[in-house]
Amino acid sequence: MDTDYHFTHKHILSLEDLSRRDIEYILQTSKSLKEISTRSIKKVPTLRGKTVINLFFEPSTRTKLSFEIAAKRMSADTFSISAATSSTTKGETLIDTARNLQAMNPDAIIIRHSASGTPHLLTKYIKASIINAGDGTHEHPTQGLLDMMTVYEKKQTLSGLKIAIIGDIAHSRVAHSDLIGFTKMGSEVHVSGPATMMPRGLQELGAVQHLNIQEAVKDADVVMALRIQKERLHDPLLPSMREYADFFGINREISKLAKPDAIIMHPGPLNRNIELTTDLADSEQSVIMDQVTNGVAVRMALLYLILGS
Amino acid sequence: MDTDYHFTHKHILSLEDLSRRDIEYILQTSKSLKEISTRSIKKVPTLRGKTVINLFFEPSTRTKLSFEIAAKRMSADTFSISAATSSTTKGETLIDTARNLQAMNPDAIIIRHSASGTPHLLTKYIKASIINAGDGTHEHPTQGLLDMMTVYEKKQTLSGLKIAIIGDIAHSRVAHSDLIGFTKMGSEVHVSGPATMMPRGLQELGAVQHLNIQEAVKDADVVMALRIQKERLHDPLLPSMREYADFFGINREISKLAKPDAIIMHPGPLNRNIELTTDLADSEQSVIMDQVTNGVAVRMALLYLILGS
Amino acid sequence: MDTDYHFTHKHILSLEDLSRRDIEYILQTSKSLKEISTRSIKKVPTLRGKTVINLFFEPSTRTKLSFEIAAKRMSADTFSISAATSSTTKGETLIDTARNLQAMNPDAIIIRHSASGTPHLLTKYIKASIINAGDGTHEHPTQGLLDMMTVYEKKQTLSGLKIAIIGDIAHSRVAHSDLIGFTKMGSEVHVSGPATMMPRGLQELGAVQHLNIQEAVKDADVVMALRIQKERLHDPLLPSMREYADFFGINREISKLAKPDAIIMHPGPLNRNIELTTDLADSEQSVIMDQVTNGVAVRMALLYLILGS
Repeated sequence: MDTDYHFTHKHILSLEDLSRRDIEYILQTSKSLKEISTRSIKKVPTLRGKTVINLFFEPSTRTKLSFEIAAKRMSADTFSISAATSSTTKGETLIDTARNLQAMNPDAIIIRHSASGTPHLLTKYIKASIINAGDGTHEHPTQGLLDMMTVYEKKQTLSGLKIAIIGDIAHSRVAHSDLIGFTKMGSEVHVSGPATMMPRGLQELGAVQHLNIQEAVKDADVVMALRIQKERLHDPLLPSMREYADFFGINREISKLAKPDAIIMHPGPLNRNIELTTDLADSEQSVIMDQVTNGVAVRMALLYLILGS
Repeated sequence: MDTDYHFTHKHILSLEDLSRRDIEYILQTSKSLKEISTRSIKKVPTLRGKTVINLFFEPSTRTKLSFEIAAKRMSADTFSISAATSSTTKGETLIDTARNLQAMNPDAIIIRHSASGTPHLLTKYIKASIINAGDGTHEHPTQGLLDMMTVYEKKQTLSGLKIAIIGDIAHSRVAHSDLIGFTKMGSEVHVSGPATMMPRGLQELGAVQHLNIQEAVKDADVVMALRIQKERLHDPLLPSMREYADFFGINREISKLAKPDAIIMHPGPLNRNIELTTDLADSEQSVIMDQVTNGVAVRMALLYLILGS
Repeated sequence: MDTDYHFTHKHILSLEDLSRRDIEYILQTSKSLKEISTRSIKKVPTLRGKTVINLFFEPSTRTKLSFEIAAKRMSADTFSISAATSSTTKGETLIDTARNLQAMNPDAIIIRHSASGTPHLLTKYIKASIINAGDGTHEHPTQGLLDMMTVYEKKQTLSGLKIAIIGDIAHSRVAHSDLIGFTKMGSEVHVSGPATMMPRGLQELGAVQHLNIQEAVKDADVVMALRIQKERLHDPLLPSMREYADFFGINREISKLAKPDAIIMHPGPLNRNIELTTDLADSEQSVIMDQVTNGVAVRMALLYLILGS
């Protein structure tokens, strides 16, 4: 790796902003920090005295916990604000909330919000680093990075792979970040799902779209099932849970169309036997738990790269 | 104490699993760690870099806080997940939640759940140590241990005592843990309460059951009133609050049937003048606040014994 | 400053209790601790091993966060209990909650409660230091102190100033603490607002009351707009939001009546264009963000003075 390379990003808003070299550097850093979480003493003093605020306007267990664990293992002080208890319920605007947080001198704010573009908006008003933990249907860059880290671990490369992503592509910020990331690293992303869940303009982003999932999965190196929001399935335009499982669920039979050493991924939380059959989810091909483990490592790396130097 | 004794438990699920010697060792360790909470600097570095997750599926102030304080005074990093904000509301199964937590490499998970047996179930799926903070109507082993610690402090023994437990025995995990623990240590547990709140099979567990509380309390060394769930008292099978207080509430008159130096206990939160009259709860005989103080000490000891060596 | 002065308060309940010299000393300490929050490593070991509990019975984002950040930057361990998750929903009385907390040996309890006098009441039952984070319509002493710190920073004095406070004086604990504080330091507090929002007895507290805000603001050094609780404006006795803004909102025109170098303050969260027009709130005259920054410094100072020596 280039010795005169420097990671210079202040915020992590979108995988669009990161170069191929940035991503390689983040994944390399993640790999070296991952080991800390396997120690008996899972803590390094690197970010001691840093203030990291989790500002979550949508419910989250795993992503929020993953960031908190990552921050504390680097010795940062963490603080959590959830929408339910926040002043935004008293009519304060989001920007005022952000400015108020800024006035308390945080080093980083990790934000999840239902409105696409919110993290980017905040950077105009505050000095702290912003990390996007999911904004509307736009991006979830740390998920994209942990997915790439997981694929790299198993395949030793991120280029020349066929990545199949199955499900509600239109509403998935995970799919969007993965599409940007894997394409940027030189792999090909193939998508399939209910016609009503396919966004326009996929081709321009580099994705290959398929009407049936068999074609998407055929000879894939990676098969990723997306989470279906059960709420969406009450929509008359959309298939029922059962129909979804029948036509777009990944099962053994479909997975056999992929390469023999293909890995199975899911961003969680998993609706078992809907997006993915239980036997596959718990099989040796499944790397779903690796994704979660790597999430902590990627977030440690990002906090380190942004705040630690 | 035996020099070749070693505490070898990985989990604390039930007092059934602990030997008499284990309990003695836990109480001895609790006693020596209790002093830390009285220092000006209430913190030792013993569990630095350990990850302790509180996973509470039922509301709790005091038990959750007690575990958090215990963990932080030992320098562990603590994280809290409550049911309301957890992915289980998104349909994720408990076991998937546990596996996801495991993937983030915690050292211990402290769990409270309304279903009996949940903590034991989790041990089959995850590698972290599990501490049961109350499971359904089954057990609340840390409460049992803090109760024993409190009795030992006041009586200098745990054998040959008469322990009277009054109230809703059938639905009380506290009663169950106390019954197992005190019996194991060589004391006799006598119970009384409304007939509808008496479980079957008490005799097999070693308890002596009484129809009226006077007999249970007579000559007791310890009188413990259990918390009544107000919700239960809307049940037509059960007495009203007033009737409960009249027939099964502990007052001065009844307490005088116990030994002159008997102590009064309650696991909290207390419904004043229902389970226990206010004068008794606040009297010199009452050790209710000692129970709370000892709760922190017992939890420090358990975390230390499980994670610290 | 006097060399034989010592800060001897154990609790911070009300600005009534603090002498002029106490306030000077708190502000001086706040000023010297403020710099810590601008460092790369925002942490000093002063309060390591201290247990600080936030006990909030009313929702709060900024005050609670401000205390948490202050405590952690001094290296204390912090714990949060909010009313929604607390045992008080199980019928436990406030005093029992406090006694239970006390039994876990906290060093300080920071309390916000809707009932005036609650913090003072707790001091009778527990040994820990109590800091009032807002009690009913009574006082919010840390807000009063951060307001004084902010004015002192900008004016280099707290005596001989004209402080105009506009809004719902009757229901504002902020107004009450500011009135006590600024008057004690030798400034004159002028108030105005809807007649239905003016309490009786203002004169006895040293305030000058005006029917129209122009008189209150005229030649003021400081113009402070109070937050209007939107709930209150549904009250038929009170003006609508629009009427309020028209008659009692601070805009450019009114602010020009104040001294040319007057500063604009607001305790937040701000209802933009109701209490204060957006152009003023974001102008160079506005010190609203300084107030938030100073809030952390004042709370660090109070925790230090109470617990650190």
